[in-house]
Amino acid sequence: MQNFNFQNPVKIIFGKGTIGKIGPEAAKAGKKALLVYGGGSIKKNGVYEAVIKTLTENGIAVVEHAGVKPNPALGHVREGVKKAKAEKCGFIVAAGGGSVIDESKAIAAGALYAGDVWDFFSGKAQVREALPLFTVLTLPATGSEMNSGCVVTNEDTKQKYSAGGAALFPRASVLDPETTMSLPAAQVANGAVDAIAHIIEGYFTTTDADNAVTDELVHGLARSVIASTERIMKDPADYNARAAMMWSATLALNGLASCGYGGGSFINHAIEHSLSAIYDIAHGAGLAIVMPAWFKHHLRTAGPARLEKFGRCVFGAGSAGETIAAFEAFFKKTGAPVRLAEAGIPAADIPAIAGNAMGLIRAWGIKYTQPEVEKILADAV
Amino acid sequence: MQNFNFQNPVKIIFGKGTIGKIGPEAAKAGKKALLVYGGGSIKKNGVYEAVIKTLTENGIAVVEHAGVKPNPALGHVREGVKKAKAEKCGFIVAAGGGSVIDESKAIAAGALYAGDVWDFFSGKAQVREALPLFTVLTLPATGSEMNSGCVVTNEDTKQKYSAGGAALFPRASVLDPETTMSLPAAQVANGAVDAIAHIIEGYFTTTDADNAVTDELVHGLARSVIASTERIMKDPADYNARAAMMWSATLALNGLASCGYGGGSFINHAIEHSLSAIYDIAHGAGLAIVMPAWFKHHLRTAGPARLEKFGRCVFGAGSAGETIAAFEAFFKKTGAPVRLAEAGIPAADIPAIAGNAMGLIRAWGIKYTQPEVEKILADAV
Repeated sequence: MQNFNFQNPVKIIFGKGTIGKIGPEAAKAGKKALLVYGGGSIKKNGVYEAVIKTLTENGIAVVEHAGVKPNPALGHVREGVKKAKAEKCGFIVAAGGGSVIDESKAIAAGALYAGDVWDFFSGKAQVREALPLFTVLTLPATGSEMNSGCVVTNEDTKQKYSAGGAALFPRASVLDPETTMSLPAAQVANGAVDAIAHIIEGYFTTTDADNAVTDELVHGLARSVIASTERIMKDPADYNARAAMMWSATLALNGLASCGYGGGSFINHAIEHSLSAIYDIAHGAGLAIVMPAWFKHHLRTAGPARLEKFGRCVFGAGSAGETIAAFEAFFKKTGAPVRLAEAGIPAADIPAIAGNAMGLIRAWGIKYTQPEVEKILADAV
Repeated sequence: MQNFNFQNPVKIIFGKGTIGKIGPEAAKAGKKALLVYGGGSIKKNGVYEAVIKTLTENGIAVVEHAGVKPNPALGHVREGVKKAKAEKCGFIVAAGGGSVIDESKAIAAGALYAGDVWDFFSGKAQVREALPLFTVLTLPATGSEMNSGCVVTNEDTKQKYSAGGAALFPRASVLDPETTMSLPAAQVANGAVDAIAHIIEGYFTTTDADNAVTDELVHGLARSVIASTERIMKDPADYNARAAMMWSATLALNGLASCGYGGGSFINHAIEHSLSAIYDIAHGAGLAIVMPAWFKHHLRTAGPARLEKFGRCVFGAGSAGETIAAFEAFFKKTGAPVRLAEAGIPAADIPAIAGNAMGLIRAWGIKYTQPEVEKILADAV
């Protein structure tokens, strides 16, 4: 077990009918909010109304910044920063999924920064301060509601890069599983794959595999995500399955699932970000394509031990090969693509994808070469 | 899954050689510390020296408050409060196990309160503010290093009562597993039993057992505690087992292991507090006596479902009865007593023990009658 630091100050308010609790929390931070949301699904499922109601009741004026897209785009982030500055918003309320929350974090940092917000993503500047952020989560997947990172795509350069810093932890996040009851199956699948991806990165890239407790947490969260997904596929109205999925996805990337692993890297994410930056596919879909191929690379280079342990504890698999097959079978079952062609990506693009991925791989300090990444992607054909 | 709130701001600094990091953390809070510790074991294992060194190097003056006992006593807490006030200490550094940290929390609250510190335990006053607290943990067991509760014993009234409040969360806690390498076997056992006790209370008293994710965390932490205990018993120098034990015991009572259970009660703790208040036995020892008896009560009144699930997932047990036997076998294996007589407590005392327990049972709002508690204790004869 490697040394680690852990701190996560986010206040989680979890459960049915809890959206009304975000207003009193936000009121502690000021009187004027930038309300950030996406394409309008929150106007269909009652979330928008509930958020406006609680903000208004708590004396908060609202400036809206709508239209956040999956893989949030730098141009739209810059508009948000401009609006937050011009309107002198004291804090941000994000209502939506991981993309909405990530864009909100970028705006929160950009609003208190004199330069261009992309500086935080390109590595030119560190996030030292940000507007307070409050979130109402409607899509379990990224864990952004309980961590301090965010990912934004620069549409011009096709770079999907990340930024982070303690100032970006939300002050409070409301997780109401009822807001997820009407999610389309594809979004449930993407969320499940993303949550799985978050817990496998540290587990499989650790430099110290003798870590009984974090291994147990990872196995437990994986089993919970898989079991919940299957229950939701059978019965979309299954509240307890929706709740377990929501809390599992949050715990998957709040820092707990990597405590003591040390030396871990987010290599699957680095490769996937290239896919969704170039082709604008869903992050979860990209991960379902990358992971089975990367596991084969992991088996070739690191041996079968971790795949055997994970497979035995999560899938009841008898070998490393069976574990990889079980991952792939689960992703397929959810409806996610598991090969490049299934997402309409031609094999001929592999050098370009790998080349793009190298930018993030270098930025994150991961020791992979472009030929290695190309070889991994060749297994995804 | 029931609604819940979760927030835990404690900064955890975990690993080998990390004690030197408490000085820079503490320096953020002031220039004068009350250093609280126990019977002097920290003077034998190098912890005292390391703490003094980092505090001094960070320009912090130290006032000492030594001699905290297991089941920390109100009289000694009052002395600490007096000292902290008289010396105008700006914060507290606790170096030791759960008793030291609990007494430190009580002093931290008492130092900013005009009345008697027992008011927080008797229910007369709420903890609204407290001196900042920093801890260096040397005994994995109570989880106090990452929660906001504390327990103190009033020697005169034989009441072992609790207090809590967000102001009591430590600012930062150093967990260096190497400080636990020289712990006597009995303390390892007490810590393991205590950690198990913390995770079973919510699990077995929940009003909603359809909570896949928290169940997974509980099972995982239980397996980790049990496996680590067995490794430590075989090889006390096994660092990774010491580390897994330390982190598991912390996670067992930092709030995560009860998320979504709702309606849970700490009935085993309420009964045990009576034992250790009257007989001054170790908390872990008392819990090892109470739990098997309480599980029989649980089986009679709530049925076998939870015992079966826990037993299947943690012990590989085939029935509720086998699960109870497996708990008892594990406690015995660690050397803990599992019957009142083994701790020298006569069966004739049961009415007095139960009568004393009723004070805390009422204070905590648990719906048990004295005859019920007596019946549970009769199974511990």
